[in-house]
Amino acid sequence: MNAIDFETKPSQYKHLKLTIDGPVATLTIDTQENGGLRPGYELKLNSYDLGVDIELADAVERLRFEHPEVRVVVIRSGKDRIFCAGANIYMLASSSHPYKVNFCKFTNETRLAMEEASRESGQRYLAALNGICSGGGYELALAADEILLVDDGNAAVALPEAPLLGVLPGTGGLTRLVDKRKVRRDRADVFSTLVEGIKGKRAVEWGLVDRVVPRSQFDEVIASRARELTESAPDDGADGKGIELLPLVAKRTEKRLEYRYVTVDIDPDHRTAELIVCGPTEAPPDSAEAIHAAGCNFWSLAMARELDDALCQLRFNHETIGLVILKTSGDPESVLAFDDALARFAEDWLAREIILKLRRVLKRLDMTARSFFALIEPGSCFVGSLFELALAADRSYMLEGTDPPVHVGLGPLNAGLLPMGNGLSRLETRFLGDPNRVQQTLARKDLFDAEEALEHGLVTFAPDELDWEDEVRIAIEERAGFSPDAMTGMEASLRFPGPETMETKIFGRLSSWQNWIFQRPNAVGEKGALTLYGKPNLPEFDWRKT
Amino acid sequence: MNAIDFETKPSQYKHLKLTIDGPVATLTIDTQENGGLRPGYELKLNSYDLGVDIELADAVERLRFEHPEVRVVVIRSGKDRIFCAGANIYMLASSSHPYKVNFCKFTNETRLAMEEASRESGQRYLAALNGICSGGGYELALAADEILLVDDGNAAVALPEAPLLGVLPGTGGLTRLVDKRKVRRDRADVFSTLVEGIKGKRAVEWGLVDRVVPRSQFDEVIASRARELTESAPDDGADGKGIELLPLVAKRTEKRLEYRYVTVDIDPDHRTAELIVCGPTEAPPDSAEAIHAAGCNFWSLAMARELDDALCQLRFNHETIGLVILKTSGDPESVLAFDDALARFAEDWLAREIILKLRRVLKRLDMTARSFFALIEPGSCFVGSLFELALAADRSYMLEGTDPPVHVGLGPLNAGLLPMGNGLSRLETRFLGDPNRVQQTLARKDLFDAEEALEHGLVTFAPDELDWEDEVRIAIEERAGFSPDAMTGMEASLRFPGPETMETKIFGRLSSWQNWIFQRPNAVGEKGALTLYGKPNLPEFDWRKT
Repeated sequence: MNAIDFETKPSQYKHLKLTIDGPVATLTIDTQENGGLRPGYELKLNSYDLGVDIELADAVERLRFEHPEVRVVVIRSGKDRIFCAGANIYMLASSSHPYKVNFCKFTNETRLAMEEASRESGQRYLAALNGICSGGGYELALAADEILLVDDGNAAVALPEAPLLGVLPGTGGLTRLVDKRKVRRDRADVFSTLVEGIKGKRAVEWGLVDRVVPRSQFDEVIASRARELTESAPDDGADGKGIELLPLVAKRTEKRLEYRYVTVDIDPDHRTAELIVCGPTEAPPDSAEAIHAAGCNFWSLAMARELDDALCQLRFNHETIGLVILKTSGDPESVLAFDDALARFAEDWLAREIILKLRRVLKRLDMTARSFFALIEPGSCFVGSLFELALAADRSYMLEGTDPPVHVGLGPLNAGLLPMGNGLSRLETRFLGDPNRVQQTLARKDLFDAEEALEHGLVTFAPDELDWEDEVRIAIEERAGFSPDAMTGMEASLRFPGPETMETKIFGRLSSWQNWIFQRPNAVGEKGALTLYGKPNLPEFDWRKT
Repeated sequence: MNAIDFETKPSQYKHLKLTIDGPVATLTIDTQENGGLRPGYELKLNSYDLGVDIELADAVERLRFEHPEVRVVVIRSGKDRIFCAGANIYMLASSSHPYKVNFCKFTNETRLAMEEASRESGQRYLAALNGICSGGGYELALAADEILLVDDGNAAVALPEAPLLGVLPGTGGLTRLVDKRKVRRDRADVFSTLVEGIKGKRAVEWGLVDRVVPRSQFDEVIASRARELTESAPDDGADGKGIELLPLVAKRTEKRLEYRYVTVDIDPDHRTAELIVCGPTEAPPDSAEAIHAAGCNFWSLAMARELDDALCQLRFNHETIGLVILKTSGDPESVLAFDDALARFAEDWLAREIILKLRRVLKRLDMTARSFFALIEPGSCFVGSLFELALAADRSYMLEGTDPPVHVGLGPLNAGLLPMGNGLSRLETRFLGDPNRVQQTLARKDLFDAEEALEHGLVTFAPDELDWEDEVRIAIEERAGFSPDAMTGMEASLRFPGPETMETKIFGRLSSWQNWIFQRPNAVGEKGALTLYGKPNLPEFDWRKT
């Protein structure tokens, strides 16, 4: 398969159409049947593949940066009497296990980004279901703030994955049913086993949709509801002038991903990659206006977008890389100066959006099923927002005893502005057993040398120059040699201590069950339900319960 | 394989020895190498199989009922310089997937029962590690309140599953590391990839054990620490006279499990079972003394023990049963009278223990990977503690319009004394979207007829006699025909809305990842790490990351 490109823009969309009318945006899904990412399936009935979701993710992101004036996003279908049939089943059935799992992870991240846009940026989503809305289609609707369903005796919402395909809804549907919409669990059980779904009054009564509307009034009600949501939207100070997200300056080859501030050197033989993030080279902004003037070239934003792209590239286009070495390069003071500016101007919508983008990218890293080691060496700038990389890593090594010493440090963005999916900052998560340390470490204004960082619990190991090379080399070789599955499961269990949220439940509980089922012969075996979908033969199950 | 028997008693133990010395109990693990549940593996180095864990579960339970005077349970090894090597690897490698998963689930329930005994019954656990303590051995220690490790340059704690076997620690180890002992996640990462584990001072520094003790002082320190724990133990009013847990009165065949109050009729052809719980036939107790006099024949306790055994039987000895129909039979007023007595005398240690036993059994039901439908028909007694069965079921059907009407009702035990693993009562979990309903429904003293139960959200459906037979029959047939894996994953996602706890994390997050890995060729394939353990060949991995 060709390398997947995660960059797109509205003028290139094949499947979506984004129109803006003042504070109301409309995102129309009208999949191009032959526009799938690879041959072998047709995107009928607005079913989607990763290509469609890349457009969706792009639209959700551009709405925040390019159209901050938008208060409501209406998601509609461009096809008659069908909203969306969910992820394309033939695509799923013909995909490898790693692809299926990473596909679901990406689509989940997109839906969480919609919810974050609503919560944090005041861009609310209204799903307008003009007909059948099934599987991933309904899961997309569940990510919206409100769901309107046409009432014509035919239109229904459904999660038919379990009864029909022997798999689970893979985009948070089960979790959102009971945890977001708080549908009673017995009703959720009934609903999730009804291939034909639920329509009309019962869909409202059970809390599956917010309102049903006769077809004749559908457009009118959508428009008036969008207006209402617009009028009740909080004023977040967006002055209506967005910034353009220009294409990334990127060179991507099989062995190297090269952007302006991020570089990834890929070593397939050793199954490792070295990801280097460079600090800013320009002067920090001294006003919110300066941030606006820099736009997508503003270091924090450019770096975050590049890192995001690099993570997606690694997940899909470099499947066998098990360990990513995180490094940084640059001037610690400059990084902290950019962080300070973002924190200082956080009331400004663009500064806020940049912080939120950093937050999402770091969450994407937390959720990436690769081991991460941070190597903190001379010339590095693991401070502030970039120190989050070290905190997100599974472990960190910091070189001790050099002259001048290597430093790490904290800044305003480490104090809660970049929370993990569990709702805690990475520092709070790290010091779950000793919460006082969070404030103690944050209170210190100086940088930490290696000995101090070790003592304060900020790094895992601090070998000196005598030990560094061997210790690090052995750790890397060893890690890259372990069972990739065991590392995925181990990291998913260790990275998220403390509270669980709907978000961590979707990734930790639902996804892992889905991963399991995606491996089971009852789904993907020769006679499995997913394999046989659309074929004349009925699936045959191994009935032993686990 | 022969049917597994979950009943045992100390005089029959093959692998454990339980001795009581006043308030201090000592549980010595000394596995009989050739005493495995089935041939094909030897229980060397105190490694365990399900048979060992059945003894452990029995001991933990008997200590609470038969020896309420015990305040501290010391877990020791009967072998020299080895505490426990964990679950037997050859047993695991030669077990079916369903067996492995159910084995881990049972052992997890036993460890949670130890923690509950500490928290709720004031019986604290002290793990005294005299040598190597590896994998499931260390996970057992993690379930204790305190861990002492001998300091002899050799004894170490370790979780070598991921690096050595390509699987995860399956008994809550990863979760307890970061969530119970709050070991820093980067240290947990290092520890969980170190085959040889960690010993001595570092084990204490990293929080893996509470104290290391020179071999020469080991016995003395254990004794003094046990004494200290005894002296600081809360007085819970146990008068020192336990009740004996007599063997269950049971007849178990392939098609039927018959106890005094519980009967299970098994229909392997339709993959269903009908589980009927009978209410009490005797008069309710009018004093705590009467409960003590009845002892293990006290209805609530007898019924709970039988239901517990039936669930274990279903899990292990009737693997293909996908749907369990829950029914009750008896006088609602009698059930409520027994519940009232337990609630009224809850200060009495035995009443408390009976409630806790009910709690554990209902949790075992929540965690059982079978679909449950409750059928509420004339002659039934779904009230109070038995209404928890209907609440625990994935859905419930209540017959409407009969004369006299069928009733359900709530009592004192529904108000928080029988919480689920998520920490909420089943009513709170059910009404997550409408919390006021919990108090409203509890406040009502009358029973609910079918129409009222439906209106109050207590049952899923209330068909009348015209519809009942067809509706119920079709629902049952359909459910029993769905992919068993999809039902397992779906139910695990829908049954536990709301907060997550260490307990739900162990079952929901860790177990599902483990289930996944237990299916992956990288672990169990011909060249998988688990398959090849102890053989000369090295495992070969599919490196694609998921």
